[in-house]
Amino acid sequence: MLVGSSTGDDAGVYRISDELALVHTVDFFTPIVDDPYLFGQISAANSVSDIYAMGAEPISALNMLCFPEKQLDEEGMRLILQGGADKMREAGVVILGGHSIKDNELKYGLAVTGKIHPDKIIENNGLRPGDRLLLTKPIGTGILSTALKNDQLNGSDLDEIITSMLTLNRIPSQVMQKYDVSACTDITGFGLVGHIHEMVQRKNVDVVLQMERIPVFEKAREFAEQTVNIPGGTISNYKFCEDCFDAGAVESWNMSLLFDPQTSGGLCIAVSEKDSKLFPKAVKGYPFPIVEIGRVQPGSGKIIIR
Amino acid sequence: MLVGSSTGDDAGVYRISDELALVHTVDFFTPIVDDPYLFGQISAANSVSDIYAMGAEPISALNMLCFPEKQLDEEGMRLILQGGADKMREAGVVILGGHSIKDNELKYGLAVTGKIHPDKIIENNGLRPGDRLLLTKPIGTGILSTALKNDQLNGSDLDEIITSMLTLNRIPSQVMQKYDVSACTDITGFGLVGHIHEMVQRKNVDVVLQMERIPVFEKAREFAEQTVNIPGGTISNYKFCEDCFDAGAVESWNMSLLFDPQTSGGLCIAVSEKDSKLFPKAVKGYPFPIVEIGRVQPGSGKIIIR
Repeated sequence: MLVGSSTGDDAGVYRISDELALVHTVDFFTPIVDDPYLFGQISAANSVSDIYAMGAEPISALNMLCFPEKQLDEEGMRLILQGGADKMREAGVVILGGHSIKDNELKYGLAVTGKIHPDKIIENNGLRPGDRLLLTKPIGTGILSTALKNDQLNGSDLDEIITSMLTLNRIPSQVMQKYDVSACTDITGFGLVGHIHEMVQRKNVDVVLQMERIPVFEKAREFAEQTVNIPGGTISNYKFCEDCFDAGAVESWNMSLLFDPQTSGGLCIAVSEKDSKLFPKAVKGYPFPIVEIGRVQPGSGKIIIR
Repeated sequence: MLVGSSTGDDAGVYRISDELALVHTVDFFTPIVDDPYLFGQISAANSVSDIYAMGAEPISALNMLCFPEKQLDEEGMRLILQGGADKMREAGVVILGGHSIKDNELKYGLAVTGKIHPDKIIENNGLRPGDRLLLTKPIGTGILSTALKNDQLNGSDLDEIITSMLTLNRIPSQVMQKYDVSACTDITGFGLVGHIHEMVQRKNVDVVLQMERIPVFEKAREFAEQTVNIPGGTISNYKFCEDCFDAGAVESWNMSLLFDPQTSGGLCIAVSEKDSKLFPKAVKGYPFPIVEIGRVQPGSGKIIIR
């Protein structure tokens, strides 16, 4: 994670003029579902998420495809790219081209560009004491994707995470610009606490999370309690953050949820107390409730879980 | 080459306003030299080349690194990224961040953004009868990289292709905006004739190339004549273009040069006859001569080699 840890998972911003900044991000990964069309859509939703996390409007993208000639036929490639294109069309993004290379292992993702007024950029480190933290999707896609690989997930439990990973963070992102939002990040590979850790690092604040308020996919909670289907990334996320949090009396199996690496996860949005009740009601036409999971208080960069 | 063939190798362009268009490109590949710092520099020079081919000014980039944990240590990764950063600094490009994933095989490259006035974009398909074609670097890096892998290249022959692959196409690109240039492309994976084929496709012109004028690395010519160290890509490039060219009396071993896949190759620039003598003299501080290799005439999209 040399690049990842030195730059965070955030998009990079380039200021063109007093009126225009460009936001750039790139993400790609191996399939987490067998269906190539779904994989293309999920990877696109995941790639564009960093742009939404900064409150920007995505405008264009380039495909990146690494394909194993022997396992993947032309139809499979076409379906992946079609999935990416359809999801990007939903996001209002034009795909301008891309690059493909032969590889032993299939990987797909996109480099996405967004635009924003330089004064409207929402960074991940603006937390103020008193802010409330809102989360826009349940957590647990990592544990459930692992269960899927182990043939232990199907029916409505599967449908639920597919819906979540396919859902663009667009609507909550657009609402951010209308309220008193101090910071935002999207929850991806480092897990919920890993990404909140990036928000509080080197800040004179702590974040207090209420474990029972955090939305979790029901089946993910079951697996976590049984300590099964835990992805490898959970352990490294936990180790990386070991000194950053105080889990108090929270039962230890919850760590498998708090550090679960997410794919196309939700936004974690810091909003003033005053606006924290209004914000969730302003998010319309979005399939998940916007849930208050914690608050910010003066401190030293810790995450306290209660 | 699903993405590659549907979009060409060119950068994609997004129009922001009447004064500003953004040019985007992405490229990454496996090492062609053992030295990680050199590999990083070469990959960066190669990635930014598509921006120069359109006459644009590169401004920002994102790293993409696929790294095998077992073979590549942290120092190796650091040197690759340092090479990319140093070459991008030379190009005046800010690296904004990036993405890294574990992979069996090392790959590195960048997604690069450039800016240009929409009226100044130089596309690859504007050829006019009478234009002359200029080439800014010798060809043969594919055959010589293969020779390097086969331990058959060293000393000044090796230095020469390293210098070529490290050289930014910036200076000839900047000169393009001052002369009557109708089209440009950079010569990369499809080889010289493969990329010229993209220039003439679906146009009412032919291109006539003078084989003896085309600059070729001396050692590459030797290997081609002996039919040794020919990369696999040469054959597929040749097959893809089989019906697009007429090589007349040119000896067949020359095909191994004309279709040799280039890494960080030169620009092929179409310029009016009037300016074709002035252009090479205007390119100053650039390590290779700018050579006229052919001309454009009315026709049906063929490449004629004499």
